[in-house]
This record gives sequence, structure tokens and C-alpha cells, in this order.
Amino acid sequence: MSRFWSPVVQTLTPYIPGEQPQMQRLVKLNTNESPYGPSPKALAAIDEQNNEDLRLYPDPEGAALKQAIAQLHGLDPKQVFLGNGSDEVLAHVFAGLLKQSTPVCFPDITYSFYPVYCKLFGIDYQTIPLGENFEIEITDYKAPNGGIIFPNPNAPTGRSVPRSEIEALLSKNKNSVVVIDEAYVDYGTESCVPLLRGATCPENLLVVHTLSKSRALAGLRVGFAVGHPDLIEGLERVKNSFNSYPLGRLAQAGATAAIQDQAHLEENSAKVIKTRTKLVKDLDDLGFITLPSTANFIFTRHPKHAGVKLYQALRDQGIVVRHFSSPRIEEFLRITIGTDEQCDTLIQALSKIIQ
Amino acid sequence: MSRFWSPVVQTLTPYIPGEQPQMQRLVKLNTNESPYGPSPKALAAIDEQNNEDLRLYPDPEGAALKQAIAQLHGLDPKQVFLGNGSDEVLAHVFAGLLKQSTPVCFPDITYSFYPVYCKLFGIDYQTIPLGENFEIEITDYKAPNGGIIFPNPNAPTGRSVPRSEIEALLSKNKNSVVVIDEAYVDYGTESCVPLLRGATCPENLLVVHTLSKSRALAGLRVGFAVGHPDLIEGLERVKNSFNSYPLGRLAQAGATAAIQDQAHLEENSAKVIKTRTKLVKDLDDLGFITLPSTANFIFTRHPKHAGVKLYQALRDQGIVVRHFSSPRIEEFLRITIGTDEQCDTLIQALSKIIQ
Repeated sequence: MSRFWSPVVQTLTPYIPGEQPQMQRLVKLNTNESPYGPSPKALAAIDEQNNEDLRLYPDPEGAALKQAIAQLHGLDPKQVFLGNGSDEVLAHVFAGLLKQSTPVCFPDITYSFYPVYCKLFGIDYQTIPLGENFEIEITDYKAPNGGIIFPNPNAPTGRSVPRSEIEALLSKNKNSVVVIDEAYVDYGTESCVPLLRGATCPENLLVVHTLSKSRALAGLRVGFAVGHPDLIEGLERVKNSFNSYPLGRLAQAGATAAIQDQAHLEENSAKVIKTRTKLVKDLDDLGFITLPSTANFIFTRHPKHAGVKLYQALRDQGIVVRHFSSPRIEEFLRITIGTDEQCDTLIQALSKIIQ
Repeated sequence: MSRFWSPVVQTLTPYIPGEQPQMQRLVKLNTNESPYGPSPKALAAIDEQNNEDLRLYPDPEGAALKQAIAQLHGLDPKQVFLGNGSDEVLAHVFAGLLKQSTPVCFPDITYSFYPVYCKLFGIDYQTIPLGENFEIEITDYKAPNGGIIFPNPNAPTGRSVPRSEIEALLSKNKNSVVVIDEAYVDYGTESCVPLLRGATCPENLLVVHTLSKSRALAGLRVGFAVGHPDLIEGLERVKNSFNSYPLGRLAQAGATAAIQDQAHLEENSAKVIKTRTKLVKDLDDLGFITLPSTANFIFTRHPKHAGVKLYQALRDQGIVVRHFSSPRIEEFLRITIGTDEQCDTLIQALSKIIQ
């Protein structure tokens, strides 16, 4: 604590990311990284830019990357906003679109960074409880609001909402922005990006993506938002009042090549989905209850074993998963889908722990 | 404009960085980049990290880079704060330390991003006019304030303040933070970093550095602040409420190696200083009036030729410098110190233009 801090700093409770332990021979299933590496084309593109030109500033607009994203998704480059990871994109979304005179709404159990942004930017928020089975009940988002945001699939539950329900929400919620955070969309969730194409693009829909999960580039820090050009223009104003060059030359080059290698993403996502199916079945056989997941992680609990004890027992064996001590979800483990081998190691360890 | 923007967005006038023109055969002397490349050790360190591990998040703390900076400057790693370029560091400084009940003070002619941050974060500010010869008059910073910030050397003037004057300011200004933005310190300015060493470290001094100038890594996006651990803790709280991982794996690796190669910095800074001396003399010979510079740029005007016309005439020949149309400085050009060859090309062009 220091008397020189701005008053708001004293009220902040920062987001705590999943740890990056320095242990050797770790089975790291705690931060939803891809078990497979990024596109070799991304590594090659980075290599090509790793030269004396690093002395020069990057393109502040990220034109090539915006073009690649627009092309992949059938959009105009003016519908694309870039950021230093989707966390930075979300920060600018909260500051630039969700700070309104009425509270922003999001689920009570969701990405725990959302209330942190609200605190930082002085934004009122209201949480909407998930249903009995931890599902987002779209019909609960009826009240007037200063914006709605949720991940689809939701984190840490892994449950998703069909696109048709989001379309229904948009048809009823015309006076505020609806932000769909699709960080984990590539593992079996219906994306809302197609709604943004062409003349019928809603004025108030924004979709946020990251290259940290299915594109396997968490270490490069690139995320983006797509939406109506007017929403994007608002975000650009905030970005250009904060940091003109959020993405360096290597990040822009690597991300552009990764976006252009859709086949690599699809191959790796298919592998993750296959492993997820087997892991859920193996957990079923051990008596675990697992929420239906369309993400690269699952959310699971055992009726007879406390979540925190399972977490600790796994950790003692070098297997790191994520545990949240929040109400309603304290008995759950969030487990990233690793390789088949990592998941087998996990199942073997759990079967001994619960004996 | 969109009705979905947060109210503050409609009031923003973003910072406009120096352009990154796509012209061929450009003599680019407009954004104060290094004319020489980064440390080869930085490129090698990036190369080593450019592999499948990019699928993993970076160290959110940046421990190795903090350690390298602390070691270079004789500080404790707890005195170091990292950011995605010094622009992001400055953004967090404004939000986390300079948003107070009394206005923050900075020069009327200075880095034009400062008032932009104030607008974004809703911070009152007061500008203090530079002296007749565009010098910062430290004795003008007497009034109660919510913080003081200026670059040393100042931008775009290139003029610097001796460390002893900043020490005198600190002895009188005990109730708010003093931020010295040392982006251009390595070209002949006395750094305030030595004041931060050991038990006499002032509680309220923060010094901001970038790797974009003397370390020739503008394309990598790394900056940092050093100061009292309590100030750093406040900045960490803001950072961890905004983006837990501002620096990717490649940026951390390259920056660490660059910081450790002080010899490379000193060699290149000496070359820039030598070229600066010659350039100023050549401009003198053409009748230009140049402010004394301890930066990697100079601020110069010709009594008989309008700044904007010189700027345009140079641009027509593929030589890009920076011109500001603000009061008091509209007749000046800000010229980055390039290679000897680039500066010779500039002088030849100017000598024809003013004939």
C-alpha cells in the first residue's frame, strides 16, 4: 500500500491466472493451452521477421493480420480489432463499450476477469445465476442493461449456447452491446461470427477470439474482436488512446500465418475433441460427474471426493489442474484436454486417489 | 460514431504516432528509431524461443527480464515493472498513480500522448509552459499537484534537465509522484535511475524506460518502469486487472538478452551522438537554428523557411521527418538521427530546398 496510488488501486483485486509452475516433468492441465504446437507456418513467419528490422515500429494498424482474419471469416477488415491477447481486447471492450449508465450483465459463474475489469474501470455490473445444471439461460437476460457479455462456451463450465438462442437474444436486446467471448469456440461450439457477414450484420454484436487456445500461440499474445465497423471504430479510439502499437512485428507475422493455416487448427481441434470424448468416458467409469463440454477443457466433480483434495492429490503427483474455491463450483476440477498420454496419466492417478 | 460507445469514447482524440509509410527507398527520420539493428544476442534469444513452446503462456511476472534490468541498474527486481512498450507502462502509470484529486502537471510542449491518457482515464491536468528557449524550468513546478511527469530529455525538443535539478524538485515535492520518462536517456542525458538505488530510494520517484530507441527493438514492444517497490506494487495491481500477460515469450527473451548486452547499446549510442554533432554543424552551416539535444533526434528551424514547407519538400524527395502544427513549434522539424549517409542525404536535400 502506498499513499501515492490512485484511489481506485486500493480497491482492486486482480485476476489470478492459472499458475505457470516451474516443476519438472509436469502434466500441465491447468491453463487450457493446446497440447499441440502452433502451425509450423507461424514459426517460419516469425523466423523471417526476426532480423534487424526489429529496430522499426510495427504497423500500428496491423493491416495484414486484419486482412487475414477478414478473409478467413468472410468479413471486411474494418470489422476487425486487434489486441495483445484477448484479455487486452476485453479490457478495451469494457472501457469502450460496456461502461454505461446501466449495469453490464454476465453470468455469476464465468470468466473471473470480467468483474476485475469492472472494478478497474468503475463499471456497475449485475450477475445472472446459471441454471441448475450450470447452463446459461438466455431468457434470464431480459432486464434493461448496459451490455451483456458471456463466453460461449462458458468458462469454467465448458457448456455452450446454440447460436439460435443468441440470435433470439439479439432480437430482443436492441439497446446495448452483446459480447460473445469465443475463446474456446473451435472445439464444437457454434460460432456467432457468421451473423456478422454482409448487410445484416447487427449493430450491437461483438465476438471476441484468441490465438492462445486452438491456434496454440498463448506465448505470442494475440487476440481479436469482430463486429460492426462502428463498434470496431470505438475500440480503435480507445486502443489509440492507450498504446498505438499493441502488437509487435513478430506477433503480427506469426498470427497472420497462423490464421491462414486453418487446416492445422482443424486437425488439432479434432484431436482434442477425440481425446475429450475418451477422457469423459474414463471419468464416467470412475464415478465422476462431468458437465457436457464443447471446450478444450472439462468441468468435473466426484460425488464422494472433495474438489480441493483431488486437486492437491493430483498436484502432489505433478499433475496440475485448476480448482476454484467459489460457491457452487468448489467441488469441481477444471481439466484442460491434454494429449492422450497426459489424460491417461491423469486417469491412472485419479483411479488410485479415489480408491 | 455509435450509440453503443461508452460516453468517454466520444470525447477521445487519440494520439497520432509518426507514420510508417510504405514508400520504397525511404529515408525514414520521423519516429526516432535506431538506425542500427538490435543486439545480435537478442535476435539469437528470440530464435531460441521460437518453437512449439509458443503454445504455452509466458511467465506473467517476467521474472528473468526483471532480474536482468535490476542487475543492470543496481536495483531489486521488486523495483521493476514491465509493459508492452513504454506507452503501455505510461498508460498504467496514469491510471494507477496519477489519477488524483489535484491535477497532474506536465510541460505545455512535450510527449503528446500525456493529455490523451488524461482524457481516457478522466484525469485533470495542468500544463506548465516551457521557458523562452524551450527548456523545462523546474522551479515552475511548485504548486500542489497530483503528480508531475516529463520526459528527460524532453520530446520533441531534445533538451534535458540535469539530475541535480530533479533531486531539488524531489526535495520540495514530497506529496505526489514524480515520473521521469527517460525514453531517450542513452544519448547524453543524466539518468535518475541511480537515485533509486539502496535505502535512500525516494518513495515518490518513478523512471520509465523503453527498449524501442537505444536498444533498437521498437518492433518487439517492451518498456519498463523502475522505482520504489510500493509504487511498482500499485502498477502491478493495475496491470493484473488489465492483462496478466502483456509480454509474450519472444518479447521477454529478446528483451532480456538486449538488456544484458550493454556494450552493444553503448557502441550504437556513441555512433548516434557522433552523427548528431555533425548533423547539427551541417544544419548550422545552412542557417538552421537547432535546440541543444541530448536525444537521438534534433529539433530545428530555419528563420527564412516555414516548417511545414520544409517538411513537405523533404517528403517529396522520400525523406520523412516529423512536423507538429502546434503553437510555438510549428516552424520546427523534428529529425531523427539516422546513419551518416542518411543525414548527408538530408543535408543535400535541404541545401537545395533553401537555395
